[in-house]
Amino acid sequence: MVDLLRRRFPSSEGEVGIGDDAAVFAAPGPRLIFTTDTMVEGVDFELSYFPAVDLGWKVMAINASDVAAMGARPSKAVATLCVPATTPVGFLEDLAEGLGQGCTATGAELVGGDISSSDRISLGVAMLGSVERPVLRSGARAGDAICVTGCLGGAAGGLHLLSRDDDARGPLVERHRRPAARVAEASALRNFDVSSMLDVSDGLVVDLERLMEASGTGCEVDLGKLPLDPHLADVPDLDEVEAALFGGEDLELLFTMLPSHCTAAGMMLKARGTALTQIGVVTEGERRIGMRSLSSLKEAGWDHLRSR
Amino acid sequence: MVDLLRRRFPSSEGEVGIGDDAAVFAAPGPRLIFTTDTMVEGVDFELSYFPAVDLGWKVMAINASDVAAMGARPSKAVATLCVPATTPVGFLEDLAEGLGQGCTATGAELVGGDISSSDRISLGVAMLGSVERPVLRSGARAGDAICVTGCLGGAAGGLHLLSRDDDARGPLVERHRRPAARVAEASALRNFDVSSMLDVSDGLVVDLERLMEASGTGCEVDLGKLPLDPHLADVPDLDEVEAALFGGEDLELLFTMLPSHCTAAGMMLKARGTALTQIGVVTEGERRIGMRSLSSLKEAGWDHLRSR
Repeated sequence: MVDLLRRRFPSSEGEVGIGDDAAVFAAPGPRLIFTTDTMVEGVDFELSYFPAVDLGWKVMAINASDVAAMGARPSKAVATLCVPATTPVGFLEDLAEGLGQGCTATGAELVGGDISSSDRISLGVAMLGSVERPVLRSGARAGDAICVTGCLGGAAGGLHLLSRDDDARGPLVERHRRPAARVAEASALRNFDVSSMLDVSDGLVVDLERLMEASGTGCEVDLGKLPLDPHLADVPDLDEVEAALFGGEDLELLFTMLPSHCTAAGMMLKARGTALTQIGVVTEGERRIGMRSLSSLKEAGWDHLRSR
Repeated sequence: MVDLLRRRFPSSEGEVGIGDDAAVFAAPGPRLIFTTDTMVEGVDFELSYFPAVDLGWKVMAINASDVAAMGARPSKAVATLCVPATTPVGFLEDLAEGLGQGCTATGAELVGGDISSSDRISLGVAMLGSVERPVLRSGARAGDAICVTGCLGGAAGGLHLLSRDDDARGPLVERHRRPAARVAEASALRNFDVSSMLDVSDGLVVDLERLMEASGTGCEVDLGKLPLDPHLADVPDLDEVEAALFGGEDLELLFTMLPSHCTAAGMMLKARGTALTQIGVVTEGERRIGMRSLSSLKEAGWDHLRSR
């Protein structure tokens, strides 16, 4: 696998990549971002419906999304692969291909890794990025608009379809298996003085609570304004709003900015083919989505609501 | 666990540590080192004989050792922890304590991480370091002396004892569970124009082959000069030389330098309490340890030799 990765990810000029004790390269900037995220078989995916190439793609995307959510650009990455000794070479080749596609899409460069054996497959990435002034979770201020990029619930819709049919296809399945990290959008949004930002990886309810908690603010979110993934309408037995509220892994950006900046920021994103939707406002009061408090929604969770 | 880690590893002034999408900090230097290494239950350790605090220590040590083997200083690190949902809080607290002890010992700083559930425990770290001019594996030249720090085989001796008695104690067990990364030694050795270097993590035979392969050179190693761990003499049913040849995880430095530098380098290391031993020379010919070729030794492996 090391040789396979070395061929697939050759070193850049003047740098040391895969094959020595560690990678060596010029710092991508004076100020760095560093994050890590792992996908575990049986927890984050099942092999029955998750092709290796998509696994490689997605682990790069979720890490790049964390970097982007700080307003930064992905740079170098190292991967950790734990696989059973019986794993076919073809699977590893597909995985490397997916990692490569993920690198190309996010601007990251794989420079090293570690391979170990294990009962179940897990694939982790640690990623560096560079940033001048990071956008933290803690910068939201009362009066700011709360906005999201793109649409919500699609990845959850895809997982719902896959849970019923391993061979399910279509845009929602694609959204679950090959989500796009909003790297260019996050970078462009920084021109509009975004006050706080994170990526929706664990669902709007959970991630909004994190943003508000870090900022020490309240919020009023309008349920009717949630940008639901349009393909959710075709999915039977799935509440679209609940999918948007609780479904994670969409990797959309959730952020706050002065309301007066929303129109211009929306036009800028639209020109890149990505929607911007203001879903609410930051307040000094309670944290609410529609009529319910964020904490009661978080506590109830999706399963509870579905079973009602 | 995130809260536990945040308390245990507070952010440095002006930096963002555990708790946001990613850590943010000033680049430790213009030229960076990046590596990752993971320990997997059932492969690298068993819980029956590996306390959580030592697990945290060792995963920091093996990563810092890779950084040191490039002639670099450890800087920031992120950790990935996969544990069963039933893992006791006390285990996680001990793990965090061990990570902290490992950070203190190696000069690394834990700034982020990812926690996931899994059947078996795995603990990975990705580590950054800074370096001006890295010492690669590929720089050995014919005529160079081949040297190692400290002594070899101790970690394997400790594992051998633990394989017979989960409650075994003593210096060899300590060597296996809490190896020291040679960070200060690696840094000091750079003043002596070390031409190539790596750390002995997979055993002298395997790691020497890597060094020679990367440098395109041969070697003559004198079996009688191997610095055997003195405590190996007390271990029954274990060939000391084989433990030194094939036992990994000692984290000693294996390096090459001009023979004329060995004495001064040895005095410098001795002043730090660490031995330096010249075990052979780099040649343009075959790769040999004693009478045997490196490749035949590598192929034979430890188990084969033991059964003879």
